Amino acid sequence: MALVPLIEYDDASPEVRAVYDDIRAARRTDYVNNFWKALAHDPATLRRTWAQTKEVMAAGALEALVKELIYLAVSVTNNCEYCTHTHHAAAQAKGMTDAMFAEAMAVTALANANNRLANGYRVDVDERYRDT
Amino acid sequence: MALVPLIEYDDASPEVRAVYDDIRAARRTDYVNNFWKALAHDPATLRRTWAQTKEVMAAGALEALVKELIYLAVSVTNNCEYCTHTHHAAAQAKGMTDAMFAEAMAVTALANANNRLANGYRVDVDERYRDT
Amino acid sequence: MALVPLIEYDDASPEVRAVYDDIRAARRTDYVNNFWKALAHDPATLRRTWAQTKEVMAAGALEALVKELIYLAVSVTNNCEYCTHTHHAAAQAKGMTDAMFAEAMAVTALANANNRLANGYRVDVDERYRDT
Amino acid sequence: MALVPLIEYDDASPEVRAVYDDIRAARRTDYVNNFWKALAHDPATLRRTWAQTKEVMAAGALEALVKELIYLAVSVTNNCEYCTHTHHAAAQAKGMTDAMFAEAMAVTALANANNRLANGYRVDVDERYRDT
Amino acid sequence: MALVPLIEYDDASPEVRAVYDDIRAARRTDYVNNFWKALAHDPATLRRTWAQTKEVMAAGALEALVKELIYLAVSVTNNCEYCTHTHHAAAQAKGMTDAMFAEAMAVTALANANNRLANGYRVDVDERYRDT
Amino acid sequence: MALVPLIEYDDASPEVRAVYDDIRAARRTDYVNNFWKALAHDPATLRRTWAQTKEVMAAGALEALVKELIYLAVSVTNNCEYCTHTHHAAAQAKGMTDAMFAEAMAVTALANANNRLANGYRVDVDERYRDT
Repeated sequence: MALVPLIEYDDASPEVRAVYDDIRAARRTDYVNNFWKALAHDPATLRRTWAQTKEVMAAGALEALVKELIYLAVSVTNNCEYCTHTHHAAAQAKGMTDAMFAEAMAVTALANANNRLANGYRVDVDERYRDT
Repeated sequence: MALVPLIEYDDASPEVRAVYDDIRAARRTDYVNNFWKALAHDPATLRRTWAQTKEVMAAGALEALVKELIYLAVSVTNNCEYCTHTHHAAAQAKGMTDAMFAEAMAVTALANANNRLANGYRVDVDERYRDT
Repeated sequence: MALVPLIEYDDASPEVRAVYDDIRAARRTDYVNNFWKALAHDPATLRRTWAQTKEVMAAGALEALVKELIYLAVSVTNNCEYCTHTHHAAAQAKGMTDAMFAEAMAVTALANANNRLANGYRVDVDERYRDT
Repeated sequence: MALVPLIEYDDASPEVRAVYDDIRAARRTDYVNNFWKALAHDPATLRRTWAQTKEVMAAGALEALVKELIYLAVSVTNNCEYCTHTHHAAAQAKGMTDAMFAEAMAVTALANANNRLANGYRVDVDERYRDT
Repeated sequence: MALVPLIEYDDASPEVRAVYDDIRAARRTDYVNNFWKALAHDPATLRRTWAQTKEVMAAGALEALVKELIYLAVSVTNNCEYCTHTHHAAAQAKGMTDAMFAEAMAVTALANANNRLANGYRVDVDERYRDT
Repeated sequence: MALVPLIEYDDASPEVRAVYDDIRAARRTDYVNNFWKALAHDPATLRRTWAQTKEVMAAGALEALVKELIYLAVSVTNNCEYCTHTHHAAAQAKGMTDAMFAEAMAVTALANANNRLANGYRVDVDERYRDT
């Protein structure tokens, strides 16, 4: 029940096609995800979102797979169904095994629980962790 | 402004001391975080929470550092000040550099943004990501 | 998969019908949204929720359209599918163009990202913004 | 209790200074918020975050003030203390009156409540709002 | 660091005083919480918020204490420091023991964890729970 | 659209069967919820999650029904569709009437609203609620 129809390559403006082309090149596949085809209704946001996604998710001090796992944990915490499915697939493509996924979910669940215990008891940050 | 006073080792029951001892042994430090000293008011939750934290955060299919980064990303998403400070320190102790922290925060921010774009446009999950 | 069946006008109690009538009059349409037909199972909550929605969403210091955009941004942040669809429609009825919707989503995504950067680095509020 | 010390202009690299200069020019003030001085530890994120903030928050189909109100509503929903203070100030600078702020908060609270009523009863989206 | 100064009884308008008087009568204390003194800047929201709080939190099919525990669990999940402190006190005033508080926090943490496991694995709702 | 196929009893390992058997015995039904059949892909998490769910949700200082209501309020706040459906059913099985459900939802909505008013105005915790 998307709020906008998806814009396919053949119906896209040159500006949008340029982004689709870059997505295809970067991901080495002809397939462009629905996310980008929906954002295409706002070319400025499409361009900006793709540029930052490409830059942020690239391997750097952290491997690309580790970044996908962090992305997935956040998406699950926020309950984004779309992002959970697509980044589960993206993480698998980068080498995530079923065991890795299971452990990432266990850590996500644990952190969500412990966050509430810390906030519920209003635990003060230990003196030693306060210094910059 | 904690809702309960912290229970120090010398004032703790044998049951609570046993958990503190295990925390100290596992972390190779005499220091016990305020979180555990607050939970000590509910020994069953202290014992259970420590047991699962120890089990879930141990290296397995994912390295211990990767787990700390996931934990941190979730804590930041939920805005748990206590957990952000303590797991920032825990991640550093396991080898997180400033560059790794910065990249983890950038991914956390990106996922939080993109989660809302996907949900805002109500993008349907692509057919290819729906199969189990 | 609603947890309660919807209560249609013909099956409603006089108390519930009075609220439906007021909704119809205020919105100048015979149509009553599913939300209200579900809340009708709890007439006190139906009455209270409608009264406050009518009062809060009315034009005041802020235009009705601006209020709809704020409502939409919150609903998207919380990932309420129902509210996103209905308030997208409500905003359109009050004049929201596709470009306005796109910009509202871009701001919503940006704020969700920057909120996490501020919380992740635990940035202290600037002295100048602390005074009442 | 920031996790990183703030980087002042005099201690900043040329890359960071260029961003600070652009912030100062765009905001017509010498003052640079702590947020940017913390992000300066990751120049790539500083540059990217400022560029998108500048682009997204600029007046377009929506006035700059309306964008600030949306940003504020999201920040309050996510409980970002830093962002609430700074964007309250930013909105005031763009013309937000106390009455506008009060109404924006009332709408934010209402949407947060109604989101949960819709999700709690699991209300199905009305047929008429499902079409693209 | 409140965004507005608190409005004390002696400085309040007759409209605001009437709400303060009702709060005092309902709670059998002269003390009025800061929350209401801040909301007093928006008399309409003060009046409306107090009226619904009084109505919703009153004993009904659920005891007043059970309602306080639900309120507390939500506040902890959302990390509202103010609400956690005040409703912890309110619940104690209605009979919450330390053991009850500890169990409420344990359930809150558990639900937050299991919510993410269900969302992370995208578990389909069982056929038997789908019927209205 | 679950990310993993459900593991039925006949296809389960002895370790997983032992958990299923305990679930059946504790709940006095042959039926095992999809949640557990999905978690069965990670036997350690299945075992741990069931053990803590069984321990935490058991009647103690709080009745089992009160715990279910707290669980439901958190699940609705986080918008976990799966947990809302299953714990609505679980609460009904423990005696929740329609009136109790309606009141629990009204409190959940109220707390979500008031949390934002308190955070939006950044109300300082009253002196009297700060003491441990």
